[in-house]
Amino acid sequence: MKEVMAIVRQNKVNATKKALLEAGIPAFTCRKVLGRGKKLLDMTMLSSFVESGEIPLSPVGEYLTEMNRLIPKRAFTLIIEDEDVYKAIDTIMDTNSTGNPGDGKIFVLPVYENYQVRSGDNSKDAY
Amino acid sequence: MKEVMAIVRQNKVNATKKALLEAGIPAFTCRKVLGRGKKLLDMTMLSSFVESGEIPLSPVGEYLTEMNRLIPKRAFTLIIEDEDVYKAIDTIMDTNSTGNPGDGKIFVLPVYENYQVRSGDNSKDAY
Amino acid sequence: MKEVMAIVRQNKVNATKKALLEAGIPAFTCRKVLGRGKKLLDMTMLSSFVESGEIPLSPVGEYLTEMNRLIPKRAFTLIIEDEDVYKAIDTIMDTNSTGNPGDGKIFVLPVYENYQVRSGDNSKDAY
Repeated sequence: MKEVMAIVRQNKVNATKKALLEAGIPAFTCRKVLGRGKKLLDMTMLSSFVESGEIPLSPVGEYLTEMNRLIPKRAFTLIIEDEDVYKAIDTIMDTNSTGNPGDGKIFVLPVYENYQVRSGDNSKDAY
Repeated sequence: MKEVMAIVRQNKVNATKKALLEAGIPAFTCRKVLGRGKKLLDMTMLSSFVESGEIPLSPVGEYLTEMNRLIPKRAFTLIIEDEDVYKAIDTIMDTNSTGNPGDGKIFVLPVYENYQVRSGDNSKDAY
Repeated sequence: MKEVMAIVRQNKVNATKKALLEAGIPAFTCRKVLGRGKKLLDMTMLSSFVESGEIPLSPVGEYLTEMNRLIPKRAFTLIIEDEDVYKAIDTIMDTNSTGNPGDGKIFVLPVYENYQVRSGDNSKDAY
């Protein structure tokens, strides 16, 4: 069992949600995060984020101090069987890749146990 | 050392917080998430979530497009010693199980190291 | 590859962000959480949190029921190479340690795989 954590653009939530459902991986949680990648913002990236509505427009005079602004993102968390991990990664990549900086990251983490609160049903992986 | 991550109903936060304190597991963080389980919403589930106030009422005409709406949930994160894991799981299950879909999920993940910022004290598990 | 998760005071976000950049670890996400440590609030801690603006002032009469209030915190998530883990921990500790209760916690968790959405580039650790 694995956790797949994906940091994506906020305007990609609905497309990602739909694509995961179609791929047979309907269960996930999603939350607001602020983030920054390895590349700091330059004027071109900053303009593209403003144009796409991902960050609000600021007066031009402030641009110089805004190169390391945090960008609002959405973090998806999927806890899924090992056999579904690559299908989930492919689905998220296909839906979120635009070829531009800021498309996001996907991480895979181990999960040892998984319980359903209602029934108490659980499954355990090898530790 | 383990991370216990629990996704529960938003109206169960106070009861869960109280129960964890009484169980001797006071330390945790809690955050807002949106989520969806393996079962998509049907009319019955949708009505029950609306009745309980977990999602706002929508005009009946929109129901058909709302079968895969995300439900507001709360995610608890506890980082605890291995010996406390089953006590935490039992406490969260007892407090959150209503027998209805949407009661939530609990996951157990490995944690390797644990530091207190104030003192620098740390403990490490075997890698 | 590891996840470094740090729970810090909300008024330390900018200093932490700046310090991580200077340390050569610019990439992270940050989110709002509510939290509680192992120590419950006493009158002194409650006063200090109110004075620092971390929680709003309440009428004195409510103090007795507020000993286990949750405090707004910020959670940083860094996914970094093993060789950067101790630099990240030291940087976060140096920036966030005030010597008072509530300074926060840092946890280290395993990460198995890491993908860039834009390019599909990935790196995998031993499972």
